[in-house]
Amino acid sequence: MPIDLDRIISYYKNLINSRLETFFNKKIEEGSKISNDIREIIINAKEYTMRGGKRLRPIFLIYGYKCLTDININAIIDVSISVELMQSYLLIHDDIIDEDELRRGKPTFHTIYKNMCEHKFGKNKSSRFGENIAILTGDLLEAYGEEILANAPFRSERIKKALIKYAEIVKNVNYGQILDVISEMKKKVTEEDILLIHKLKTASYTIEGPLHIGAILGGANDADLQVLSRYAIPLGLAFQIRDDILGLFGSEEKIGKPVGSDLREGKKTLLVLYALKRAEEEEKRYINQALEKDEITMEEINHIRDIVIKTGSLDHSLKLIKKYTREAIENIKNSDFRDEAKEFLIAVADYIGKREY
Amino acid sequence: MPIDLDRIISYYKNLINSRLETFFNKKIEEGSKISNDIREIIINAKEYTMRGGKRLRPIFLIYGYKCLTDININAIIDVSISVELMQSYLLIHDDIIDEDELRRGKPTFHTIYKNMCEHKFGKNKSSRFGENIAILTGDLLEAYGEEILANAPFRSERIKKALIKYAEIVKNVNYGQILDVISEMKKKVTEEDILLIHKLKTASYTIEGPLHIGAILGGANDADLQVLSRYAIPLGLAFQIRDDILGLFGSEEKIGKPVGSDLREGKKTLLVLYALKRAEEEEKRYINQALEKDEITMEEINHIRDIVIKTGSLDHSLKLIKKYTREAIENIKNSDFRDEAKEFLIAVADYIGKREY
Repeated sequence: MPIDLDRIISYYKNLINSRLETFFNKKIEEGSKISNDIREIIINAKEYTMRGGKRLRPIFLIYGYKCLTDININAIIDVSISVELMQSYLLIHDDIIDEDELRRGKPTFHTIYKNMCEHKFGKNKSSRFGENIAILTGDLLEAYGEEILANAPFRSERIKKALIKYAEIVKNVNYGQILDVISEMKKKVTEEDILLIHKLKTASYTIEGPLHIGAILGGANDADLQVLSRYAIPLGLAFQIRDDILGLFGSEEKIGKPVGSDLREGKKTLLVLYALKRAEEEEKRYINQALEKDEITMEEINHIRDIVIKTGSLDHSLKLIKKYTREAIENIKNSDFRDEAKEFLIAVADYIGKREY
Repeated sequence: MPIDLDRIISYYKNLINSRLETFFNKKIEEGSKISNDIREIIINAKEYTMRGGKRLRPIFLIYGYKCLTDININAIIDVSISVELMQSYLLIHDDIIDEDELRRGKPTFHTIYKNMCEHKFGKNKSSRFGENIAILTGDLLEAYGEEILANAPFRSERIKKALIKYAEIVKNVNYGQILDVISEMKKKVTEEDILLIHKLKTASYTIEGPLHIGAILGGANDADLQVLSRYAIPLGLAFQIRDDILGLFGSEEKIGKPVGSDLREGKKTLLVLYALKRAEEEEKRYINQALEKDEITMEEINHIRDIVIKTGSLDHSLKLIKKYTREAIENIKNSDFRDEAKEFLIAVADYIGKREY
């Protein structure tokens, strides 16, 4: 019997949001004791975190735990927000790096403080001020995530292992980010470059890392973690390819950011790279010119969509998604994890694999 | 019998430097397996870390441990570099925040990558590129520090507690940094503001934090940590006041950065704030004008030195240093820690208290 994925996700999302609320309210209290400026920083960090997001990472963390055990679920939900704070930390830094002014339809963290600076102290150095506050607030949230995990009511041995994993995720995602920043500067990006960045960022950070942290806290051994990796890595790749397709073919409403953002940022996705390989000279030039520009029209996007379809790149990507999600499903199906968790993880992979575009 | 402080410090400094070398070489190897760009990042992070620095924090960590025990010293020296990586992480971010181009006489991390960008990809967006790489490399080094601590060969219970402390230090120093950035924008800074920043940054991060991590790994209980705090907090304040005096009255050669840097950055130290309180109107105006300017002449520095002396601010600060170091010494003297550690900690406080300017 298929499980009701939407219902489960929205059930946990609500719980996670309420734990985030509670956590930030405690921190606002802690901050008030230090100074009013710190209090305001934490209020803004809370607002930034509570704006939205699917809470996928905490949910994967919870289900990593559920692969092994079902006792003490309340405690694991408490801990699960550690990876959401990691996410806020990374997004705040990412917004600076990409010079984005909006995140989920509202000002990015450095923009909030740039505006605040202009309002309170004048325009002079307001960009610098905003970025400085955002760098430090990101750093702060990383420490918050660590703090939550380190204080969790699980055996010390497991917490220690979970913290090693936490540091490893931060390390990998930063490796991936560095490569991403460098690759945007380079004119020539290969398929291997992109796959490596996907592996370090999406696969390790969005799916494998949270699953591992949860599983470790549930008592997983190395073999268990390997099984989870064999599910998480292909699923992460499928997830990323799906994101690339949505970014080009989706609607702004659906994806929460303007269509063609990757093109606008000059970012080559696998989808575009594969099209470039098979396109005719004139089409290649067209895509490359669009990638160079700071702006892009809907007409240009439509033309690039046509090329991506015509060259077979869209079909190829859809096939890859199917292949990777099937691989993920096979690898988790044959494991001896708890059925409830297996069913959920299979349903997630199935959803990503079947999704219409 | 007085101990030979210089000899002890240089002994541990050498050991710490060689562990840092070994650690970074391993990471360079790890990075090579990912990509050549990552390898280069780590090589530069190594060079940045190995440039110098007194290694005070790792030494305090080692002596925090020695307060409790002397077994497994090799392991504690290995772990001690975690706080030096934290230091590199914070300095790299701090350099971006202060827009400094030099750190210990060589280009700051963002400047290295700004120059590299100009060389390889052209001037366009080279500042942005340099800062982006530096934000991410700082984040990376924070994770390295965590990783070292989490993998240390001590009991899990102790490691867990040490990691809670590690996160707390990162949290406090970032609170302090945020207040520092905000206070530079504000026209009015009070003595309480400055003391709070000192407490969060220097006292908690330079002395108390490393001592606590070491002590925790050595098996300290809460009462032990409290004794160490009663030593570390006053000593941290003395240390900071000493730094402020050196920054104004020292020589560039001695302090490793231009004299009057604080004034140039518009940063009010307690030394200057106290002088401002007691100075005549004309002198006040003179100091405030100097604080507003981006550059400062040696003549201006000399005039401000005179005001700081004439108003009794220098004397007041020297008295505070004596008072605080005496307090630190009394609090550690009466503890029941191991003699070797007590003697060292007393000698450090004594050195800071007696130092000539």
